Amino acid sequence: MADALPSWREGATRTALVEFFDRIDEIPRRDRVAVFDNDGTMWCEKPSYTQADFLVHELRLAVTRDPAVGERDEYRAVLEGDRAALAEMGLVRVVMALIELHTAITPEDFDERVRTFFAEARHPDRGMPYRHQRYQPMLELIAELRSHGFDVYIVSAGGAEFVRAISDDFYGVKPEGVVGSQIDYDLVRDDGTVHLIRTAQLVGVEANEGEAKPANIQRVLGRRPVVAGGNSAGDAEMLQYAMSYDGPSLALLVDHDDAEREYAYASTAGTFEAGESILDTAARLGWVVASIKDDWETVFADS
Amino acid sequence: MADALPSWREGATRTALVEFFDRIDEIPRRDRVAVFDNDGTMWCEKPSYTQADFLVHELRLAVTRDPAVGERDEYRAVLEGDRAALAEMGLVRVVMALIELHTAITPEDFDERVRTFFAEARHPDRGMPYRHQRYQPMLELIAELRSHGFDVYIVSAGGAEFVRAISDDFYGVKPEGVVGSQIDYDLVRDDGTVHLIRTAQLVGVEANEGEAKPANIQRVLGRRPVVAGGNSAGDAEMLQYAMSYDGPSLALLVDHDDAEREYAYASTAGTFEAGESILDTAARLGWVVASIKDDWETVFADS
Repeated sequence: MADALPSWREGATRTALVEFFDRIDEIPRRDRVAVFDNDGTMWCEKPSYTQADFLVHELRLAVTRDPAVGERDEYRAVLEGDRAALAEMGLVRVVMALIELHTAITPEDFDERVRTFFAEARHPDRGMPYRHQRYQPMLELIAELRSHGFDVYIVSAGGAEFVRAISDDFYGVKPEGVVGSQIDYDLVRDDGTVHLIRTAQLVGVEANEGEAKPANIQRVLGRRPVVAGGNSAGDAEMLQYAMSYDGPSLALLVDHDDAEREYAYASTAGTFEAGESILDTAARLGWVVASIKDDWETVFADS
Repeated sequence: MADALPSWREGATRTALVEFFDRIDEIPRRDRVAVFDNDGTMWCEKPSYTQADFLVHELRLAVTRDPAVGERDEYRAVLEGDRAALAEMGLVRVVMALIELHTAITPEDFDERVRTFFAEARHPDRGMPYRHQRYQPMLELIAELRSHGFDVYIVSAGGAEFVRAISDDFYGVKPEGVVGSQIDYDLVRDDGTVHLIRTAQLVGVEANEGEAKPANIQRVLGRRPVVAGGNSAGDAEMLQYAMSYDGPSLALLVDHDDAEREYAYASTAGTFEAGESILDTAARLGWVVASIKDDWETVFADS
């Protein structure tokens, strides 16, 4: 462990990680499963979710092809940055409208569009490719877990296909290792061929967030995590699920407290214990908290 | 290829496989995805589905613990082999009753029960461990695909967790590489811990069969197959999905025509073209047909 995790500064958090790795022999090989949230845990989620940046990019392309598209209320509000209108419509309505941009295209075409976006787009604040917005200490952590025989997966509230398009390149996680919110598909027969096309409906009633995460991990991966990382109350059940393992486990919360090098903000959504801050939850349940300001020597990969 | 596929006899089928491998350079690495049905494609499905054997085994254990369990109509019919009663109830009612045997246990406990079954049970006709019921030529085919950079997955109408318990050991496919029919889970909080327990309901309205297979492949794996193997009309859409790839593809149908070494039977269910036999479908759509009798030098692994 001496040379491992070079971006993790000495301190209680690094010590907690090292102590976990010291006990890894107690975890049977088959149980070595680690899951990580994506937005705000593996990569930066500010000033806006990367998937939102992608959808706005796609909206602009659609309007370039056909200006009439931009006349729809939700799209007009997005393009004009009309905060009052957006607030009145609510996030869900706006997101579902943006998801309709990709109705009836194949998953292969969607994958291609996402990868084109990542190849060309730049982070609005830092001006770098989004690949540079990955957190270097977290990449080191998943590398260390893998070197101890762990299988590592991404469990995001974002769209499964959006993350899958870049998960292998960004994290060494194959598409089947990504659990995300899922869009429904229609099967289309055309002259002897069979294809899938996207609908604008989610599978099930909810996004992959909060209480939904453990069951979706089981459905998509068929594995039970003993290590989990997150940064918000939407990850609380997943972290607690890992902590409930009958053996050494690790629940890690990334705390965004570095306004200088990243952003300082606290998750306010509370699905686990209503009204409790996520840091209070972490303290109560014994999660390891990674302070970006104090615990991370380097924040971003490739920076 | 000279030494590859030793259990595949010379002939049109082997030639078709070799011709596919000869064109593999035309398939980008990222697209090298192969999916195989399980029952009747990767392992023997006669005289009964292995999962049915497992459920009957579990029923007998439950009745040993509590004889009153056996008084339920569906269970009584199963235990007495009452074909008339079973036929009147219908397969779905009987299977759903058997699935209730595992209500409220955790996925970890279910996994343990399945693995205990496979460690101890024997195939009713051949008297060998079920692991010996795998088809040797299919194991060679997936090994050859992997040696060409393919990722190989199992796509079964059987329960996802049932297959996942043995997929790594039997096929080198990790749990997350298995697409199957899915049970719903409840999340349970107990004194600060979070666990999942099984319900007796399927996720969605249908088993992972026929038209459902392509969309479930996309949902669980996020990949698009260019190679698919199956043995019944329940695999037709999946095979046709692979064949619809814009490049070299392979759709392989296992034909159970060897009453001496295995079983001779034809799939009669027809979800793809009503009333058409699966062999006629194969001929019409250009699938490669593997005759167990003619094309396989060896049938079973470890035999």
